[in-house]
Amino acid sequence: MSCRAASNGASHVKKADKEDKAKLLDKVDAFIFDCDGVIWRGDSLIDGVPETLDALRAMGKKLIFVTNNSTKSRKGYLGKFTGLGLNISAEEIYSSSYAAAAYLDSIDFPKDKKVYVVGEVGIIEELELKGIQHLGGPEDVDKKIELKPGFALPHDESVGAVVVGFDRHINYHKIQYATLCISENPGCHFIATNLDAKTHLTDAQEWAGNGSMVGAIKGSTKREPTVVGKPAEFMLANIAETFGLRRNQICMVGDRLDTDILFGQHGGLTTMLVLSGVTTEQALLSPDNTIHPDLYTDQLSDLLEAAKASVAA
Amino acid sequence: MSCRAASNGASHVKKADKEDKAKLLDKVDAFIFDCDGVIWRGDSLIDGVPETLDALRAMGKKLIFVTNNSTKSRKGYLGKFTGLGLNISAEEIYSSSYAAAAYLDSIDFPKDKKVYVVGEVGIIEELELKGIQHLGGPEDVDKKIELKPGFALPHDESVGAVVVGFDRHINYHKIQYATLCISENPGCHFIATNLDAKTHLTDAQEWAGNGSMVGAIKGSTKREPTVVGKPAEFMLANIAETFGLRRNQICMVGDRLDTDILFGQHGGLTTMLVLSGVTTEQALLSPDNTIHPDLYTDQLSDLLEAAKASVAA
Repeated sequence: MSCRAASNGASHVKKADKEDKAKLLDKVDAFIFDCDGVIWRGDSLIDGVPETLDALRAMGKKLIFVTNNSTKSRKGYLGKFTGLGLNISAEEIYSSSYAAAAYLDSIDFPKDKKVYVVGEVGIIEELELKGIQHLGGPEDVDKKIELKPGFALPHDESVGAVVVGFDRHINYHKIQYATLCISENPGCHFIATNLDAKTHLTDAQEWAGNGSMVGAIKGSTKREPTVVGKPAEFMLANIAETFGLRRNQICMVGDRLDTDILFGQHGGLTTMLVLSGVTTEQALLSPDNTIHPDLYTDQLSDLLEAAKASVAA
Repeated sequence: MSCRAASNGASHVKKADKEDKAKLLDKVDAFIFDCDGVIWRGDSLIDGVPETLDALRAMGKKLIFVTNNSTKSRKGYLGKFTGLGLNISAEEIYSSSYAAAAYLDSIDFPKDKKVYVVGEVGIIEELELKGIQHLGGPEDVDKKIELKPGFALPHDESVGAVVVGFDRHINYHKIQYATLCISENPGCHFIATNLDAKTHLTDAQEWAGNGSMVGAIKGSTKREPTVVGKPAEFMLANIAETFGLRRNQICMVGDRLDTDILFGQHGGLTTMLVLSGVTTEQALLSPDNTIHPDLYTDQLSDLLEAAKASVAA
């Protein structure tokens, strides 16, 4: 970054210097990381990440890796980390599949009620870990509506919540079943893991995301879902409560202004933008940009030196 | 209806008397009929309808039967009428499948461009009648996304419009294909036949309607569609232009206040509510109801006597 760029742009957005980094590490006790553009880009680890995570952990910092990917459970998603040589535990991952189960847990979802799932195996696995009864999901992949005069699709009246996550096997049976539960079962919750328009099934193109699955159910029920993944408040409240932290003791690290940084700011977190993903320094400092992180840096490993110095001291 | 009910309720809503009916028949040159609750209830014709339609036709009135059902073409939908013993022509039907083709025609959709269809055979048949190239629809029923690293779903760059209608075979291939066309083909139109939350595939239950299919595409594109069926302005403009009529020369006849009557009023039509469908006189005259048709009557055949008298005179 050139000094000229900084002085011409939004002057109150500051690239972190040595002192800023030391202050940050002193102030915050937990880091929430968006993964793509911070930890990895596609299938490649970003330089210096493993050492930096190790140094932060050596300082006693809690590390939380968030993803709106609901197709895998935390355990299922762990493979992506270990495959890249990162040594983390499933409990450090906060997937939107887990968020759905944690949300149901937080509202004391009755044990005699069931959850109907539009989505993939990740949601099912997380519900099972919480001991929540479920139906739908992968078991409804091949179901078809066979229309005969007078036919009604029967549905289970003990379904007390519908969870909608990304589902590459979305079909009309699932849409109708979810619609019936939400419309006809009194008090039935409608929970969306996230509303992302796009997802990254492959690196080769952008893919229609869970916004499509949720949009389908919104379109027939005229109901708005409770969103539990990014950028919903629930995820932050749940993380803060789980770790017993105040909001400003948590730093959100992300590469996107309008999702990661805004999400962190709305939740009262400290925010740090890294330039290793989609946001350029030019876009950040542009007078058109109104979203300003507390600090920014080129990449996560810029914290390594400060972390090492802190541990040594 | 009791006089007391009328005087206690919205006093400016008037049940049509003999004079009102004669005035109506004198004033309007065309009738737009919502079918369910006006012409038939489920699979049963409502009393006196065939004779009344014959008498109106004998007076030289244009008759237009509108339906948001896009799964059939006008020709395909004709079977429902003839099956009930009604003698009408396909040109008197205004289905939302036809509305989509008529809309594309009205904007001079280029002959070298194609339409991608999320929907059933009705839309395909109406596009063919207008000589508009198409792909998708029934031919994509069994398509699956086979995910391999680096896979991108190819899409046709000559697609200039996506038409979304009710589709009981909705799948992720169709959602992604439609999303790619709308997001990546410059100027690509996004057209919804309608946004109905519910549809009536069988009488035994309410079924998720085209609101689901459109919701899925809205959710991934973050775009709002152009709606061509009820309650969109296009349908009325197109009918008025086709028949060379002023708006108040057209009477909308329906059984629902918040759809049929509101639709007619927004379009500047004369409106008549019939009580042979979902709206009760009590609901119409309730102080809570703010939607007031120009006149109302028990059922369509209440116009028969006035029509016969007019023809005789």
